[in-house]
Amino acid sequence: MLRSPTEWRIYIDWHTKYTGLMLRISRVYYSSKSRYQEIDIVESPDLGKCLLIDGVIQSTTYDEYIYHEALVHPVMLTAKDPKNVLIIGGGEGATIREVLKHDVENVTVIDIDEELVNACKEHLKEMHQGSFYDKRVELIFGDGLQFLNESKMTYDVIILDLTDPTEDTSQLLYTQEFYSLIRDRLSNNGAMVTQATSPNFSPHCYSIIHNTIEQVFKYARAYIAPVRSYGGLWGFVIASNYNDPLYINEDAKISGKLSFYDKSIHRALFALPLSLRERIEREDRIATNNNRIYMPSFER
Amino acid sequence: MLRSPTEWRIYIDWHTKYTGLMLRISRVYYSSKSRYQEIDIVESPDLGKCLLIDGVIQSTTYDEYIYHEALVHPVMLTAKDPKNVLIIGGGEGATIREVLKHDVENVTVIDIDEELVNACKEHLKEMHQGSFYDKRVELIFGDGLQFLNESKMTYDVIILDLTDPTEDTSQLLYTQEFYSLIRDRLSNNGAMVTQATSPNFSPHCYSIIHNTIEQVFKYARAYIAPVRSYGGLWGFVIASNYNDPLYINEDAKISGKLSFYDKSIHRALFALPLSLRERIEREDRIATNNNRIYMPSFER
Amino acid sequence: MLRSPTEWRIYIDWHTKYTGLMLRISRVYYSSKSRYQEIDIVESPDLGKCLLIDGVIQSTTYDEYIYHEALVHPVMLTAKDPKNVLIIGGGEGATIREVLKHDVENVTVIDIDEELVNACKEHLKEMHQGSFYDKRVELIFGDGLQFLNESKMTYDVIILDLTDPTEDTSQLLYTQEFYSLIRDRLSNNGAMVTQATSPNFSPHCYSIIHNTIEQVFKYARAYIAPVRSYGGLWGFVIASNYNDPLYINEDAKISGKLSFYDKSIHRALFALPLSLRERIEREDRIATNNNRIYMPSFER
Amino acid sequence: MLRSPTEWRIYIDWHTKYTGLMLRISRVYYSSKSRYQEIDIVESPDLGKCLLIDGVIQSTTYDEYIYHEALVHPVMLTAKDPKNVLIIGGGEGATIREVLKHDVENVTVIDIDEELVNACKEHLKEMHQGSFYDKRVELIFGDGLQFLNESKMTYDVIILDLTDPTEDTSQLLYTQEFYSLIRDRLSNNGAMVTQATSPNFSPHCYSIIHNTIEQVFKYARAYIAPVRSYGGLWGFVIASNYNDPLYINEDAKISGKLSFYDKSIHRALFALPLSLRERIEREDRIATNNNRIYMPSFER
Repeated sequence: MLRSPTEWRIYIDWHTKYTGLMLRISRVYYSSKSRYQEIDIVESPDLGKCLLIDGVIQSTTYDEYIYHEALVHPVMLTAKDPKNVLIIGGGEGATIREVLKHDVENVTVIDIDEELVNACKEHLKEMHQGSFYDKRVELIFGDGLQFLNESKMTYDVIILDLTDPTEDTSQLLYTQEFYSLIRDRLSNNGAMVTQATSPNFSPHCYSIIHNTIEQVFKYARAYIAPVRSYGGLWGFVIASNYNDPLYINEDAKISGKLSFYDKSIHRALFALPLSLRERIEREDRIATNNNRIYMPSFER
Repeated sequence: MLRSPTEWRIYIDWHTKYTGLMLRISRVYYSSKSRYQEIDIVESPDLGKCLLIDGVIQSTTYDEYIYHEALVHPVMLTAKDPKNVLIIGGGEGATIREVLKHDVENVTVIDIDEELVNACKEHLKEMHQGSFYDKRVELIFGDGLQFLNESKMTYDVIILDLTDPTEDTSQLLYTQEFYSLIRDRLSNNGAMVTQATSPNFSPHCYSIIHNTIEQVFKYARAYIAPVRSYGGLWGFVIASNYNDPLYINEDAKISGKLSFYDKSIHRALFALPLSLRERIEREDRIATNNNRIYMPSFER
Repeated sequence: MLRSPTEWRIYIDWHTKYTGLMLRISRVYYSSKSRYQEIDIVESPDLGKCLLIDGVIQSTTYDEYIYHEALVHPVMLTAKDPKNVLIIGGGEGATIREVLKHDVENVTVIDIDEELVNACKEHLKEMHQGSFYDKRVELIFGDGLQFLNESKMTYDVIILDLTDPTEDTSQLLYTQEFYSLIRDRLSNNGAMVTQATSPNFSPHCYSIIHNTIEQVFKYARAYIAPVRSYGGLWGFVIASNYNDPLYINEDAKISGKLSFYDKSIHRALFALPLSLRERIEREDRIATNNNRIYMPSFER
Repeated sequence: MLRSPTEWRIYIDWHTKYTGLMLRISRVYYSSKSRYQEIDIVESPDLGKCLLIDGVIQSTTYDEYIYHEALVHPVMLTAKDPKNVLIIGGGEGATIREVLKHDVENVTVIDIDEELVNACKEHLKEMHQGSFYDKRVELIFGDGLQFLNESKMTYDVIILDLTDPTEDTSQLLYTQEFYSLIRDRLSNNGAMVTQATSPNFSPHCYSIIHNTIEQVFKYARAYIAPVRSYGGLWGFVIASNYNDPLYINEDAKISGKLSFYDKSIHRALFALPLSLRERIEREDRIATNNNRIYMPSFER
C-alpha cells in the first residue's frame, strides 16, 4: 500500500472524551511500561521531543520552558532567599534545571519511578541539561507522601511537579492533609507551589485545589501560563505563610537564560480571565483524604 | 458494522501540517460552499456550536467570548468616547454584540459573504444575540478594502475581524498601505485593532503585523488572549495616534455582562512571554501590497 | 490557522472498538436525524457518495454494485423463474435496480424510514437510477415483520437487505421465528437471501445466522463477496426448499450491465476460507426471539 | 489531562491519500530505522502483532496466514514435485513456514535487510515459528536482483514476497527483464508466483504485472485472496511454462495445519469479479526497466 506523504504514526492527547490534540509522530525513542506507568518518548515535527506518561503529554521541548519557568521562579521569588528546595515529581529534570538558576545550596528530588528518570536521563538531555548531576542535587526514588511523613527536614521551597490527580497515588498529594504536611515542612520564610491542572479542561480541580490550599496557608494565589502543548492555559497555585506571592523579592537574581518568565510579567500571571475568577470564587468544596478530587469528572 | 460508543464524525483543525485539534462532531447544522468559502456550522460536545470557514475554526460558543471581548473592549477604551464604529469582517455578529455594550451611535459592518452572514443569523443566535437587528447597526455586503477606498467617512474605532492572511483577499488587509488607509479614516481621537494570527503557529505573521502597524501609528501594542478553541494564545495589535493603549479611559462604562475582560486585567493582556517579546523585537520586515505576509509559511 | 492540504473532515467507520476505516470527506450532502436513525450522505474522494446510517457505511458508489449484485442475482437464479419479489429494507434503491434486471412482474419494497428513502431519492440517483419509479415497483413504509405477519401474499423471492442486528428492530429479523415466517410466505419454487454481517468482524453472527436458517430450510448456503467499503469480506446466506443454491438456473437471463457477478463466478462465492468453514461448522447456537444475536459482541 | 478510555496511540495505514485503516496501538515492541527502511512492530487489540515497513502493514498475526498460504501453496502445487525453492523477500519468515509444509529439500531465502530479519526473529516468533532455523533453509542477506544475475542455480519454485513497487529497488523486481531472468532460473517443471499489489487500491499495477508476466510465460494467471489487514482483496500472479496453474497436482501432500487454503478452494481464487477481469483485459502496458510501474499513481 501507499506510504502517505504525511506522517503515519498518530498520537492523540485527549483533553476530554471528545477533544484532543492530534500529533503526527516522526520517531519513537522509547516505549515501555514501567512498574508505575506507561512511558513514551517520541518526536513530533512541531513540538519536538515529547514525554508521554500513560498517554498524556508531560513535557515537550517546544514549550516545556514555559511550564517549568512558570512553576519554579514565582515560588523562588516569593520565599525569602531560599537555600533548601524539595521537588516532588518532575522526573524529566527540567524543574531542577530552573531551580539551579537560583542561589540554592541543596535540592532534594523525590520521584517514584526510577525507570522514568533513567529514560529521561538518556533521551531528554535537552530538558535536564545535566542538572541531575549537579553536586547540590540529591535524587531519591520513592513515594513523596511517605518521604515527607517520615522526614524531619524543613525546606525553604517545596515544588509539587506531579501527574494529574487521576489515581490514588497522586490524588493523595492534592488534599488538605497533604498541604498541611507541606506547611509543617516549610521553614518560616518558605513557600510552596503546585501544578493545579487545566483551567480549561478541569476547572473544578483547579478551583478545589486553590480552595483547599487557601484553608491551610495565609496567602494562596492561583495563576496561569499559556502552554500550547497542554492545549491552552495551565494552572498553578502558590502559597506561603510569610509573603503574598503577588509581591516578589525584587532583589533576587536569576542566573542563566530565561525564555518565558521575567519579573515584568510576574503580576500578569495572576490576572485571570473574569469567568475563571468567578469560577474559583464560587467553589466551596475542599479536597481531603476521604473526599479527593478526581480529574476526569469534567464540568464547565 | 459497529456503531462506536464514541462519536464517529471527526473534524481536525490543523494548526500546522503535523498538529491539530481533533474534535468529535455530534451534529452538522449547515454545510455549504458559498461564492467565497466553505462554511460549516457543527456541534462539538466540548466546544458547543462551531463556525468553520474553509475548514478552520472561527468561533465556538465555548469561548468566542474571550476572542470577541479581547478584540473589542481594549480598543473601545483606548479611543476617546467612540460613537462611530466600523467593523470589517466578523460575520457571526459577536463583534457587533460586544461593540453595542458601549455607548455608540452608529456601527457599520462590512462583510464580503452574504451567505455566511445569513447562515450565522439562522444558526448562531447564541453568538449574535440579535445584534444584527439593532437599529444602530448598518450591514453592508462587499469588499472592505474597496469600501474604505471609496468612502469619505471617518470612524472613532475601526475593528478588523478578518480571516487569516492566507489568500489574496485577506492578505491585502494586512499591509502598510491598508493600515495607512485605516489611519486616514480614523477620527483624531480614534483607535484601531486587528486580529493578528497565532503567536504559537505563525509568530512571524504576528511580528510582521505588529511591525507594519508600528510604522503607521504613533502607538502600536501587541497583546494576547488565551483561546482554547484556537489551540492556545491568540494575537492582536491595537494602534492609535491619540493614546497609548496601555492606558485606558477609566471612566468609560461597559454595559451588559462580561465574561473574560474587565479593566483589572487590561494591562496583563500586554504582558507577553519573554520569548515572544524577543521574537517581535527581532522582526525587521514589514508587509506591503507587493510583499505580503503569508500565513502557512511557518517559522519558529 | 492553516487550511491543511488534506481534507479536514474525517469520518471513521469503526469496525470494532479499536479499528476502523478512516475517510476524508470532501462534501456533506445531507445530515439529519430521522425518527429512526441518523442519516448522512457524504462525498469521499475515494469511495464516492457514501450513505451512512447511525455512523455506519451502508453503501458507496465505489462498490455498492458488488454488495447489491451479490445480494440479488444468486437468489434470483436459485428460485424458478421468479415473478413476485419482496425486498425488506434497502432504502437506497440499488437492490430494486438489480432485481429489475430480471424478468419480474411485481416488486414490493418495505422500508421503515420514509425520510431515509426520500433523502436517497434526492441525493443518491447514482444508486437507485430511477428504479423507485418503475411501474412494477410498489413502495410501502412500515415495519417488515408486521407487514409479513399481516400479509397473506406469497413471493417467489424474498430479499432481506437489513441493517445489522444491533437493536431490537433489526434483531427480530434474524431469528428462527422470522425465517419460518419467510418460508411460509415463499412460493413452492421460491428462495430467500439475507445479508449476514461481516465474516471478519462478527463471525459469530454470520455463523449463527447460517445455523438458524439451516434449521428452517432444506438448503441453506453461506457465501461471501469482497467489499472494500465494508473493510473486507461481506457475508450472505441464501436458502430454499426447492433448489440447492449452488446450482443455478443456467437458462435465466439477466438484462442490463453487470459489474461484479456473472454465472462463471457463482460457485466461487461459496468457496469460503477454510477457517471460516470451520468456524461455521463449530457453531451450534441458533437465534430465536428470546435469544437474539447481537452484533457488537465480538469474538474471534 | 485525561487518559482516554480508548487507546491513544493511533496508526493509520493509508490506502490512498484520502482513505486508510485506523488502528489503536496498545504496545510498541520495536521501532527503528534500518539502513533500508523504517521498521515498527506493534500490537493492535484486533490485529495482534503487526509488522510495519515504512508505515505500511506487511503482516499481522490476525490474518498473515491468508496472505502466506495464498502466496505459497498454489505455486507449490503448480510445479511438479518441487524440491528447490527460492524466496526473495519475506523477512518475517512466514513464507518459509508455509514452504516447509511441502516435501522440499532446499529453501534459499534472500532478503536485503538484516536488521529487519533480526527484529522479526526476536519479536515475531508467532510468524516464523522457528522456520529460519530449519536445516533445509539457507538465509542470505543481499539484493535479490543481483543474486539472481550472478547465480547459476535453478529452482523448482521461485516466490517473490516483495514490498510494493514504490521505489527503485523493488520496482526493478516487477519488470519484463526481471521475469525473464526468473524464467531462466526455473527448472523445466517449475513455477513462480509474485504478490501483485491491491486490486482495490492499485488495479493498474495489478493489471500491468499480470500483463508483463503473460509476455514471458506460457501460462500466467491472476488470483486474489481476501486480507482484512490489507483493507480488502490482495492480488497475486502465478506463472509457469510447464503447467496451467488452474490445474494443480492433486496428489501432492501438504503437511501441517492449514487455515485458509485447501485444494477445494483453489479454483475459486482465480474467479475474479467481472469488473476486475475487464480491467485486466483492457490493460495493454507492460513494465520494463525503462518504464516501471509505480504504485502511488492511482487510477480506478
